[in-house]
Amino acid sequence: MGVVRTGALLDRIDFTAGEAVLFPGKADNLYRLRAGLVRLYTVDDDGVGVTLRYVKPGAYFGEERLTSRPRRYFAEAVTRSSVEVVDPDALSADEQRLLSGLLAMALDSMGRSMHRLAGKPFRARIAAELLELADSELARRVGNVSEIRITHDELATAVGSVRETVTKVIGELARLGAINSGYGKITVRDLRVLREVAGE
Amino acid sequence: MGVVRTGALLDRIDFTAGEAVLFPGKADNLYRLRAGLVRLYTVDDDGVGVTLRYVKPGAYFGEERLTSRPRRYFAEAVTRSSVEVVDPDALSADEQRLLSGLLAMALDSMGRSMHRLAGKPFRARIAAELLELADSELARRVGNVSEIRITHDELATAVGSVRETVTKVIGELARLGAINSGYGKITVRDLRVLREVAGE
Repeated sequence: MGVVRTGALLDRIDFTAGEAVLFPGKADNLYRLRAGLVRLYTVDDDGVGVTLRYVKPGAYFGEERLTSRPRRYFAEAVTRSSVEVVDPDALSADEQRLLSGLLAMALDSMGRSMHRLAGKPFRARIAAELLELADSELARRVGNVSEIRITHDELATAVGSVRETVTKVIGELARLGAINSGYGKITVRDLRVLREVAGE
Repeated sequence: MGVVRTGALLDRIDFTAGEAVLFPGKADNLYRLRAGLVRLYTVDDDGVGVTLRYVKPGAYFGEERLTSRPRRYFAEAVTRSSVEVVDPDALSADEQRLLSGLLAMALDSMGRSMHRLAGKPFRARIAAELLELADSELARRVGNVSEIRITHDELATAVGSVRETVTKVIGELARLGAINSGYGKITVRDLRVLREVAGE
């Protein structure tokens, strides 16, 4: 994942699971996730949130610092996270190149999310969200399955829906053999089925 | 908007209005718009397209070239466009910095689009699309109003809807005094009203 050189590293801040990391407002610094999982999300007028993207270790957020635009999203630590505060002007040429590549990957991830939001039913959105999380700090391997620590409420917030809809879809995915649902956790049993439902 | 140095500029290609610029597939080069307007869009299983973002002169697209991921979108020239083919490895440090900033702006634009897609009714989406286009090559100033050359069909494709819905919404926006609708064109009369409907 590489390490930001000392010259560009301004500070390091630790967050507990569920803690707010950034609020909308004036852009201040560039941030790089050292460990954990951070979710960037926006909230509409009715208070319904939708995930813009997940930030995984090594990736940057707060990139509006590179523009003259304000920050328009919230960032929250999904798991215990360690965040580096980075001075973009002090990055080396190699770090700059890496930053561009990571921003390009973020654009690709958001493109896929928009595709799902626009064209796909809720079942595909939820399946895609679980696929994304199965490969994150929120999940742990138990034998050859992946156990994601998430409630139906949290999943609803992430995909811009309500708990009742999520619970219905989770039941469908369980009947398809893709997952098992337990208290505060979802176990991914068959990635292939989940990918099919997500349309990937 | 600055000029890419000769060392990084591999080629220049001109496109007529409506011509396809890129298809989904293997990432090949990085592209920079010299003049015109390019739309990046994705198409769902039902053939409904949705705009990911508009590329305006000076901005880059094809940024998946900076990652190991494939291209998942289409690009089309909305107006007559001139596109530069750029070698990302030959960019100077300043150009690299500019590229990061432009990719960060693209992330901000896509974040706003996702916010609209997720939370807002169609009226807000269409108003926002018109606001975006009022400041593009597709528009020309006539006195103190902005005239956008676009049909209801094209607008429907851009926002992932059908012509009938767009025609109904355009009628509502016209009654609010925000726009006038003519044959193959929409005239923006009151930016303030349009911004209000778009929720900006």
